[in-house]
This record gives sequence, structure tokens and C-alpha cells, in this order.
Amino acid sequence: MNTFNNLLAQLQGIVGAEQVLTEGDLTAYEQDWRKRERGKALAVVRPASTDEVAQVVKACAAAQVSLVPQGGNTGMVVGSIPDTTGTQVLLSLRRLNRVRAVDAANLTVTVEAGCVLQTLQEVCEKEGFLFPLSLAAEGSCTIGGNLATNAGGTQVVRYGNTRELCLSLEVVTAQGEVWSGLTGLRKDNTGYDLRHLFIGSEGTLGVITAATLRMYPLPASQLTAFAAVPSLEAAVQLLGLAHKYLNAGLTGFEVMGDFALSLVRKHFPQQTVPFAGLSPYCVVLENSDHESESHARAQFERLLEAALEDGCVLDAVVAENLAQARALWHIRESIPLAQAQEGLNIKHDISIAVSRIPAFVQETDALLEQHFPGVRLVNYGHLGDGNLHYNVQAPAGTDAQAFLRDQEGAINALVYAMVDRYNGSISAEHGIGSLKREKLAHHKSPVALNAMRAIKRALDPKNLMNPGRVLSIE
Amino acid sequence: MNTFNNLLAQLQGIVGAEQVLTEGDLTAYEQDWRKRERGKALAVVRPASTDEVAQVVKACAAAQVSLVPQGGNTGMVVGSIPDTTGTQVLLSLRRLNRVRAVDAANLTVTVEAGCVLQTLQEVCEKEGFLFPLSLAAEGSCTIGGNLATNAGGTQVVRYGNTRELCLSLEVVTAQGEVWSGLTGLRKDNTGYDLRHLFIGSEGTLGVITAATLRMYPLPASQLTAFAAVPSLEAAVQLLGLAHKYLNAGLTGFEVMGDFALSLVRKHFPQQTVPFAGLSPYCVVLENSDHESESHARAQFERLLEAALEDGCVLDAVVAENLAQARALWHIRESIPLAQAQEGLNIKHDISIAVSRIPAFVQETDALLEQHFPGVRLVNYGHLGDGNLHYNVQAPAGTDAQAFLRDQEGAINALVYAMVDRYNGSISAEHGIGSLKREKLAHHKSPVALNAMRAIKRALDPKNLMNPGRVLSIE
Repeated sequence: MNTFNNLLAQLQGIVGAEQVLTEGDLTAYEQDWRKRERGKALAVVRPASTDEVAQVVKACAAAQVSLVPQGGNTGMVVGSIPDTTGTQVLLSLRRLNRVRAVDAANLTVTVEAGCVLQTLQEVCEKEGFLFPLSLAAEGSCTIGGNLATNAGGTQVVRYGNTRELCLSLEVVTAQGEVWSGLTGLRKDNTGYDLRHLFIGSEGTLGVITAATLRMYPLPASQLTAFAAVPSLEAAVQLLGLAHKYLNAGLTGFEVMGDFALSLVRKHFPQQTVPFAGLSPYCVVLENSDHESESHARAQFERLLEAALEDGCVLDAVVAENLAQARALWHIRESIPLAQAQEGLNIKHDISIAVSRIPAFVQETDALLEQHFPGVRLVNYGHLGDGNLHYNVQAPAGTDAQAFLRDQEGAINALVYAMVDRYNGSISAEHGIGSLKREKLAHHKSPVALNAMRAIKRALDPKNLMNPGRVLSIE
Repeated sequence: MNTFNNLLAQLQGIVGAEQVLTEGDLTAYEQDWRKRERGKALAVVRPASTDEVAQVVKACAAAQVSLVPQGGNTGMVVGSIPDTTGTQVLLSLRRLNRVRAVDAANLTVTVEAGCVLQTLQEVCEKEGFLFPLSLAAEGSCTIGGNLATNAGGTQVVRYGNTRELCLSLEVVTAQGEVWSGLTGLRKDNTGYDLRHLFIGSEGTLGVITAATLRMYPLPASQLTAFAAVPSLEAAVQLLGLAHKYLNAGLTGFEVMGDFALSLVRKHFPQQTVPFAGLSPYCVVLENSDHESESHARAQFERLLEAALEDGCVLDAVVAENLAQARALWHIRESIPLAQAQEGLNIKHDISIAVSRIPAFVQETDALLEQHFPGVRLVNYGHLGDGNLHYNVQAPAGTDAQAFLRDQEGAINALVYAMVDRYNGSISAEHGIGSLKREKLAHHKSPVALNAMRAIKRALDPKNLMNPGRVLSIE
């Protein structure tokens, strides 16, 4: 206990007594976003500078106390809360939140880890640029968390994941040293790419404190279309045409199964969902154009005419104005909530090569219906990236809680076995955290797992950085 | 010697006696591309499958014999030839050269390491797609070498380096195990990104045997323009306008100093270089359009009108046909050869944030002229990526060989010190190899170097994979 008290005194000396929280309501730091688990921190420590982070890590390392870095705490896989032992320091990066510099000629922005994603989007837009990362939690997630988990979202088809948006990093290592890698370079072949190693490592190798990120010119116009497609094969065919006709203008391509849309119609009757019941799947497409709205509209018309002719679109509507566009996107964004209102469900965040998605879904749907009669499939997601939120809802009229208790394990096993057979990923964009660690050990290649463990041991030999997340090193 | 003989017999058993070369002219394997160094291999071993590569690595590891992987042997930094001891196995990947699959709906191609880049470009084009990596050695370099060195080239401004074109890898580890990571996924957050660790590691962590790479729809039209700009600041301003007006259509943006162009005029008088002597810098721009040639031309005209109005372009010409476009690109491509014909010179492959390039060049030019009077600066490169080939030619009429002997060290020291001051990279696209290893140890952050060494020791504890390249682990 003396060690802990000494450490707390040290931490207070580093960040100030008022930034070392040990009492009061710490729910926001200790409970995970989906309210699945609650931990207990030794203390919540809130440094305001990279140097303070480095000192905190050094002090914890000296005391052999482990650290859990946290940004907006909006993760989906229980990766950023402390365990229940009360012996871990919760390192909140929220105060490290400055936008350090916008470099227009380099098309980059340098920002600290604790900056909220939406704030960063707004800063860039004010300077005439787009920071394209966009996801549901953007009002509260932080850029450090986005980097640590390599967040995805709805614009990946054009701009890539957070990883692809990052040119360089500043990191505090597990030894409490600062790697000042913020060069903003687009080309740099001077050794191993440490940047990409820290990105997506979920705080298990070090603490990302700042990053230099790509910006893009703001599009002159953004148009949204909503199309009914006769099958998932047709949706994939439409995607190919969209790549061809819109090229880099294609900034969004989301698919939604009819059951998913029916839940939106049921729980949000005020929303107008086009083409209700017309087809097994619908697609939302977004076309970002750097010329003009009329050019964007002409491009969309060319695409949709070709798609109607090819038979991969049954009917389509293009938003006439921003309000209509927002309403169409809102349908897609309402699916998770509609699904929650329908009752408990089993979520999967999977990816498969785009070309194999129709076969995967057909085969997996059939197997689930065979083994779990009456089961309802809420299938939607980022088809442009091969990323499906392939969720399973209990049969209508049954006790969802009992169904999940009895069947979740078996359903997960079936779905992930199929993902393995299709050479896919059991976590496309949400990461591993604690929630999927055991699953990862089961589904990832042993060769890759061994390499990951060797790297973890090499960079964090005392296992003090977010231990137990992503992988177990025992 | 007995160990070596045993090993050779084993290797012959694995790949066949005729694929283990120990006699005859092995210059193509043992001499580096720029003919700076010549090594001596214990044997050149030419496996034809991933399994054979794995067996070769296992046999070498058991015998404690180190391996040097090699593709087309076109590297610039002496990274793919054996040392002079005659104790290293040269692992040639040239026979492992199949294009395994083209997946049109996934926009990917899966290809083995030994496939020549140009062959891959042609295979993709035949299927209606673009594989955008393009560089001078494309007729003989291999995709495995491109990945191992994270090759750059002329299309990076739009499509990124080789790294950004790679979705997944197959790798033989230093232990001779196969990591079959060829998923073709665009999103996969299941642990550390091993792909990006192997890419750019120059064969020091394992052997890349195959990759799944991104393809893009073929553009409907590609237009090239050549513009005279009043300064490097103006070139950067033009780049900003090009991003805004052409957006993702901007697929090339190369800058060329007037002295570099004067060498082309001098040594290749049959070439017509526009705007001779009009301005200190010229730029080649490429606009790839997915609609039509007339649309591409209209876009270029909009851009160039705006640039003329802003004063960042003095004059410009847009190629009327493919032959003219090739001729304009040929001017840019002729600079290295013209420079060689002018005499020996000191090469630098550096990058700086785009916004800081004008200041860097002005300051470094002045310092060089001050300390090395009469020195001539051949400055050209991929300005769109902040990558300059900032080369130094001996003063006119002097003995270039003597100048290099006496001054190369001091000139390198001056240039790289300036690169450090501008937070740039001493190797933007060519890598480290043996040639820049000591320089890297001097210029890279010690924190990063320590992390690199820890990773090397973790993944290749016996130091058998291309030892002595990139970093020394002692």
C-alpha cells in the first residue's frame, strides 16, 4: 500500500493534485461504453502535456504499476477501462487536446491525442479542408483512441481507416521515453514503420500522444443516393460500377438488409424509408465532387442509368438537398438503435473480401436458420470495405435474454467458423480489447500470434501497458 | 566447411540441384545495381514455391547461416547482395513469380514476390484495372523487392507508396514458418499490423513471398502538362491548386530545377524541352480522368487558368496526344541519365514537409554555394510527396572524381544536417540497405532506433535475415 501511496504522491507532483482522481463518481472512466463491465482504478490521472505523460509512465514503470490509456472511452470491446483490482492507473488523455498546427500546403494537421474527433473535423473545415474520418461516436471519441484502435467508419471506401490517414506519430514508450516522430512526411523509408505498429495496438505498446494527419480539399458538393437492389450480388455489382463511374468520388457505400430496414420503419415510423419491402437489400451511396453539384448529379445519373440497365438496381432516388441527404443517411444510422429497441442481440463486426460476401451471407444465413430456427438477421454495414455488422436477433416473441444466455456462444462459434472459412476477420473495425481476446487466440494464425507476443515482450517487457488487452503474453 | 557442404546438399534436396548456383557468372546476383559493391555468396538458391522458401530458411537457420533475400536486385542502397565473406545464402525470389489471382469485385490482385512490376501492371491492365505503382526500374524490379523497400515512384501523390497499395501479405518468418496472411481485407483490426512491419524492413525480419494488392479502375484518359513556374514557392502553390481543381485526378506532380533541365538539353539535344531558360523551375503534372479526355482537358484548363491568374505559373503546355505526353514525361525521366553523362555526382533522396521545401532548398543551396563554391545543384523530384532528389554535381570543369573523394563526406554532412533541422528524412524512397546504415544510426531518433533493435531481436533472434542491413543490433 505504501508503494501505491508513494506513487500517488509522485503522480500528484507531476500533474497536480486535482488531476489525480481517486474519489467521487468515476463511472465515466471506469465503465465501458456499452455498459458491459465496470472496473476500479487505483487513480485516474489526467496529464496535460506529452512531458507529463512521459513522467507518469516512468513513475508507474518504476513502481511496477500498469497503465490503461483512455481517450473518449467510446470503444466497443472493453479496451480502455481498468480491471477490477484497483491496482491500475487510468491514464486519461482528454486534457492533451490541442490542435497544434494546420499546415495547408502540406495538407496536414497535427493534433494531440485527446482532441475530440468532431472538434478536429470542425477545425479542418474552418481552414477549408476535410478531415474525412467519420463515425457514430465522433462527438465524444478522441483522435488518440481512433488511432489506438484504427477506427473505421463510413468514409473508408475512399479515405481508408484511421491508419491510412496518419502520416506520423508522437508516442510515449513503455519506458516513458518520448518518440517525437511528428514529421508530416509522405515518404520516409528509414527503417521499420513504428507508426503502423502503434496504430491499432490498443495502448498495449505505448501511449500515442499526438499525430500528424492527412487533410483533403473540401468537396464542392456531396450527394447521397438510396437504391433498392435485388440481391447482395447485385449490391456488389453496383459497387463495381460505382468505383468505375464515380472513381474517387465514391465516399460512401453502405448496405442494409430488409429486416434491418423494417426495424427502422417499426421503431422510427416518423422516418420515410424509400422502397419499403421492394427488395432484400438497399444501398446508400455518397458521391463527393470537387467541381459542382450539377456535375455530381450528372455523374450519379450516369451511374444509376448504367446500374438500372445492368439490372443491379431496381429503383433509386438521389437526394435533392442537404436535408434529404441527411434523412437518407439517418436511416442507415438508425439501424443500431432500432435494433436495440427491438431487443438484445448478438453483434458481429466482421470483414470478408468484397467478392465473397454474397456467398458468405447466403451460406451463413442458411446455417443459422437451420440451427437456430426463427432467428432474425440484422445485416448491414460498410459493403465498400467488405465490413458487415452481421447481427443476430432472437426469434420474434421469444425471451431475448434467455436466448442470448443459451445461444450466444454457439451462434458466435458458427459465425466465426464461417468467417474463418471465408478467410475473413472477426474484428473489422472495433478491435480486440478484453472482449475478443480469447476469440482472437482461437481464430488468429499461431504464427501471427507468436510474432505479436514477441513484439509485445520486446517493447513492453514488464507488461505494464494495458495488460491483458489484445493478447495474453503468458 | 562440412556444415556448408551439408547445407548445400540439403538446399539441393529442397529446390533441386540446378537451382543452387555456386559456380559460373553470378554477377547479376552478387553485384549491386549501381555497381558500387560486389559480394560473394555461399550459394544462390532459387526456390519456386513458398514451401520451398520456408524449407530453405529452416535449413539455413539450423546451420546458423544467414540469408539475403533478393528480387530484381535493382535497389539503390546495397541491400540485396551478399557480403564478401562467401558464407551467406543469396535467396533469389525470381522463380516465385506467379500472379495467383485477380479478384475484380474486390479490386485486388494476389501475386508472388518474384513477379516483375511491369508484368503485374500488364496483367492488371488486361483485366481492365490499373496497378498504379510506377518507377524507373519497373521492367526488372520485382514486387517483393518493392514491398521489402516500400518503393515510391511517380504516382505516390495519388496512390501512395507500395505500403499503401498492399492489403495483406504471405511471409516466411526467420524461423521458417509461413504466415499466410493473404486475406485481401480492407479492414482488419485483429492485433498488431505485422504487414506494415514487414513492408519496408528490407528482408531483415522475414521473407515476403506473396501479397494481395489494391487495383484501381483504369482511367478513361490521362493528360500531361508541363509548366514553367517562377519559383519553388510557386510550385508549391500550384500543387495546392492542383489538389483543389483536380482532386484525386492529380496522379503526378514532378518538379525540375533549371540546371537539371539544362543537362537534358545539353546531353539529349534531340529532346524538345519547353520554356528553356524561362524560369528557375518547371513542373510536370498528370491528370487521370475517369470520364473522358475532353473532361480531363477542361479540368486542366480550369487549373492552369487559375494558376496563371495567381501568378504561380508563367506558361504551360498540355500534351495534345499520347506521343506528346510521353515526350514531356521523358524529359523528367532523362534527368538521372543526363546527370550521369555530365559526370559523377552526389545523390540525396530526401523528403521534407511540402510546405517547408522552398525554405529548405533556398537555405541549403546557399550554404552549399558558400562552402563549396561553384557546386552545381541538380534538384528535381516528386514534389507532390515532398520528395526531392537533391543531387550535387562538381563545379564545371573540375575533376569530378577528385571532388567526390574530397568533398562527398562534407557535402552529405551539410545536406543531412539541414534535413534534420527541417525534420525531414534522409531516405524518402530508396531505403537504408548497407549504404545508409551508419547515417541512419546518426540521424534517426535513439528512441526509434532502440525500438527497431528490440523488434529485430524479437523476430530474428539469431540475426540471420539480411544481417547488417538497415540497422546493426550490436
